[in-house]
Amino acid sequence: MTDSDTRQAILIANAAFYMALAEADLTAMEDLWQHSPEVECIHPGWDRLRGWPAIRESWAVIFQNQGPFPVKPSEAVVYQRGDLAWVSCYENITSQAESLEINQTVATNMFERVGGRWQMVAHHASPAPPSITRSRSWTGSIN
Amino acid sequence: MTDSDTRQAILIANAAFYMALAEADLTAMEDLWQHSPEVECIHPGWDRLRGWPAIRESWAVIFQNQGPFPVKPSEAVVYQRGDLAWVSCYENITSQAESLEINQTVATNMFERVGGRWQMVAHHASPAPPSITRSRSWTGSIN
Repeated sequence: MTDSDTRQAILIANAAFYMALAEADLTAMEDLWQHSPEVECIHPGWDRLRGWPAIRESWAVIFQNQGPFPVKPSEAVVYQRGDLAWVSCYENITSQAESLEINQTVATNMFERVGGRWQMVAHHASPAPPSITRSRSWTGSIN
Repeated sequence: MTDSDTRQAILIANAAFYMALAEADLTAMEDLWQHSPEVECIHPGWDRLRGWPAIRESWAVIFQNQGPFPVKPSEAVVYQRGDLAWVSCYENITSQAESLEINQTVATNMFERVGGRWQMVAHHASPAPPSITRSRSWTGSIN
């Protein structure tokens, strides 16, 4: 039901989100989110945030605390109808705390097409089970 | 952007999901999900499940293990464009393990309108922070 150009545009929007996250780039994050009171964000283990000002503030705090952050999406799946779409994917975070390992979270990201452009309108991320995190590898491609 | 009849229909679909969950009613769960290979489900702490057969099997296992389950949604928020919508809400689970308390998860639920009916196409639930869980109360209404 989703043509390949549309699917690719949504995957690029999703990849841009992870690039902004990896680079702790608040300007890029501001550019890709819709600035509305209806947008929502659930960081892993956080309460639900609603509205762009609260979400922007959360990214500012996260970027200030953690700086650039080795995260890449994998196994992204697109579901789109009209001007609304969601992408689910794994978020692969390289950790060097003890030994080199990849930790994974699972995310549901929502996008709305406004003026031909897919803007992020929601992000919900939560930890993947440790057994999955330890056994899975990622390719580093956008899908 | 969402008229009140549409919003109400989506909230009723969301409430029907929690009623099926609370009553461990697999037939009701089968009725409200879309039976497609694209649907997705992320139970708290579980890996992503894709496609109706895997999701149906997960509910069968959950219902067999836990039986009826005191869960009610609260603070539901609807975001709808055309035939796709998401609802975010808290899931309030009454526990009597030690003393009576309410534990909360946060959920993002996706619905697609097919033939005038809002079918569930995705569910992503994850634990809310304990501080929120302990301080928040719920009204038991569908929104």
